[in-house]
Amino acid sequence: MENAIGAAGDPQTVYLDFNATTPVAPEVLEAIHHALKDCWGNPSSSHHYGIKAKKVIDEARTNVARMINLDDASGIKTCQWKRVSEFLLTKLCIIMILIKLDILFTSGGTEANNMVIRSVTTHYSRLCKESGDLPHIITSNMEHDSVKLVLEKLANENILEYTVVNATQASGGTVKCDGITQLVRPNTCLISIMLANNETGIIQPIAEIAKAVKALNCVRELHNRIYFHTDAAQALGKIPVKVKDLGVDYLTIVGHKFYGPRIGALYVKNLDAKETPLYPMIFGGGQERNMRSGTENTGMIAGLGKAASLVAQNVELYSTHMAKIRDYLEDRLKEKFGEMVHFNGQFPTSQRIPNTCNVSFIGKELKGWDILANAKILVASIGAACHAQDRPSEILLSIGIPKEIAYNALRLSVGRETSISDIDRVISDIQHVIDRLRLH
Amino acid sequence: MENAIGAAGDPQTVYLDFNATTPVAPEVLEAIHHALKDCWGNPSSSHHYGIKAKKVIDEARTNVARMINLDDASGIKTCQWKRVSEFLLTKLCIIMILIKLDILFTSGGTEANNMVIRSVTTHYSRLCKESGDLPHIITSNMEHDSVKLVLEKLANENILEYTVVNATQASGGTVKCDGITQLVRPNTCLISIMLANNETGIIQPIAEIAKAVKALNCVRELHNRIYFHTDAAQALGKIPVKVKDLGVDYLTIVGHKFYGPRIGALYVKNLDAKETPLYPMIFGGGQERNMRSGTENTGMIAGLGKAASLVAQNVELYSTHMAKIRDYLEDRLKEKFGEMVHFNGQFPTSQRIPNTCNVSFIGKELKGWDILANAKILVASIGAACHAQDRPSEILLSIGIPKEIAYNALRLSVGRETSISDIDRVISDIQHVIDRLRLH
Repeated sequence: MENAIGAAGDPQTVYLDFNATTPVAPEVLEAIHHALKDCWGNPSSSHHYGIKAKKVIDEARTNVARMINLDDASGIKTCQWKRVSEFLLTKLCIIMILIKLDILFTSGGTEANNMVIRSVTTHYSRLCKESGDLPHIITSNMEHDSVKLVLEKLANENILEYTVVNATQASGGTVKCDGITQLVRPNTCLISIMLANNETGIIQPIAEIAKAVKALNCVRELHNRIYFHTDAAQALGKIPVKVKDLGVDYLTIVGHKFYGPRIGALYVKNLDAKETPLYPMIFGGGQERNMRSGTENTGMIAGLGKAASLVAQNVELYSTHMAKIRDYLEDRLKEKFGEMVHFNGQFPTSQRIPNTCNVSFIGKELKGWDILANAKILVASIGAACHAQDRPSEILLSIGIPKEIAYNALRLSVGRETSISDIDRVISDIQHVIDRLRLH
Repeated sequence: MENAIGAAGDPQTVYLDFNATTPVAPEVLEAIHHALKDCWGNPSSSHHYGIKAKKVIDEARTNVARMINLDDASGIKTCQWKRVSEFLLTKLCIIMILIKLDILFTSGGTEANNMVIRSVTTHYSRLCKESGDLPHIITSNMEHDSVKLVLEKLANENILEYTVVNATQASGGTVKCDGITQLVRPNTCLISIMLANNETGIIQPIAEIAKAVKALNCVRELHNRIYFHTDAAQALGKIPVKVKDLGVDYLTIVGHKFYGPRIGALYVKNLDAKETPLYPMIFGGGQERNMRSGTENTGMIAGLGKAASLVAQNVELYSTHMAKIRDYLEDRLKEKFGEMVHFNGQFPTSQRIPNTCNVSFIGKELKGWDILANAKILVASIGAACHAQDRPSEILLSIGIPKEIAYNALRLSVGRETSISDIDRVISDIQHVIDRLRLH
């Protein structure tokens, strides 16, 4: 792949902030350009221009479904259908149509996360009105603000109640499955836990929680079931994501975290069969099966489809490369700085996404943002792009990182094209910065 | 300008459906491509990559403000400031910053319209809770579904009440200003009337209504004032739009109606001074001054800015060209089909946007969709892209077009590049279709 970082930054710098956002892959750029130039018709128009645009959107939806292995997932249906082998091809087409229907395009991950929380809340309030209880949601202390702040707002308005479960040191930087199930109440209707954390990179036990939720649902009334949502923003494009293996009801997809454009999508399990509740937040022309009105952003959707198809084809490759580079980075840091370096996301019992290294340099004068401010080559961040820089990360504190170490944290996240020589330059840059900071 | 229609359609066809959507101008395509390729940083990041993206967004905001003449509009402030001429340059910069703040990027016009209705409803409910009344909204029967269906939904949920005022034949296809003011109640908090109608092209008396609203507000408590919103989707890029001359509090901007991308923006009068209420619908990272969370879609925003700057520079030119072509179309239709042709949007007392011709061919066999289905060259629609084709337009019926004529309506909307020879080909195509349909 041609280098996608292009002229965005100074060629002298090394961008290690891929968890904040990625460049747009050249193939994605090309897909967007093509769709904007040649498929600009209104997808709701019944004429040729509209049909052409609609086709682009349909293809993109299939590619997004493939990225989360929705086609694999239809295994059971396929087995049954093997009996009627003469219709296999037709049936496979039907499977493709069915799985596509579970993907909904949104303006981004933020909208998708908001939509899940509002949908389940509305659903519970409608179906369980007579219970007199507010809908109850369980979430973690690691979630993105697009989960956290909606919950906060709706709780303030007395529309729902929620409980936050912390990732802990004892559970290797993850939330504990039984910690969650213990919090379940009769009015619990949603659990929302991210698949991988943006700061530490630690992968959460989503499949395990999903199994526990399934068991709980076996003894609950259908109208009172618990739905399970995962925000997969930081995992997609870095590790293979098989949505049915995860067992979730909702999964949030964010284009700009996997070299795609700034839109998103939401997987909703068997949406068309109304197995999983979804209510529109935005009303109008009835696009996206009445769930998300607004003339479709064909260009960006085409780009998301292309980005998804790159991931579907190459995720193992990306993953192996990122792991190699991140591990080299950590080895070099260890080698160069020895006891001075502390890796905040490394726990023997946990898995991390392969691109993320959360590291602190020990020393009063070695605060994360001071290192970044003084770096000449390294471009990174200390945490989520929209977070304040003057306090240590709550997430790090909750997983047992001492305050003075958490204060010094740097989040270094590598990308598809980060090279060994980029890392060598970063190491040398950090060495210079640390020498300088220690002199003052 | 290079022809933007490109390969989207068959080169043999003539696209006259510019009110449904426009192609993306080549300059806009270029701006999007550049931003996606070179300014892909997360605008919330404090490093160089983020700052570069933020700058693109700021520039786009200025261009959108200029398109609706917000800089002209600061005339009063400028006059006052002339007294302190030594600071003029600085102050002008401040004006540019101030006006920019009144523009908020959204995922599209649908989101913008939804946001206005929900914001004013929330505002009234908070401030006038003790009155016991629901907020009351006045709108017209011509509005886009992104106004109409939100009102319907919120009224069904007993969150607001609303009254629809019809455009009538007597008022030349417009809503009447005094028809609206007569409907105002003590609990009226919002009036939402589009600037130009997508089917007839008729321009509504927005400035007149704004004056009437202002007069009403003089005798109402501040917390109980009436806000005025216009959806300018169909007007922008076709006629000059000066937002302060219109006198509205909110104005909806839709990129893909003026050769821009599929995002939108909302003008909110003195938003930063909290003169006009706005409440977020989507929560998260706090982008767009906490009003619209979600990592900014830098590429599309850059495109919207470029499209807006083209309009700001060339709207007179576009307008003159479209009027010339549309008038030629109507002259040729009249000449060719004589008494058989009926123009549904022509009223002596009303102005139309210059690109729209709503026409019916009289005759039982000459239904609009039959003509379109049989046309070999003409590509157009009978009304809004997302509307059912099997019933006559409610809008046409309300402005006095007899049912049998309304049934036959075609909406022909020309674009920046539509040529005289395109029209000649369309006329000849229509002639063939009509001959064929009359034979059957």
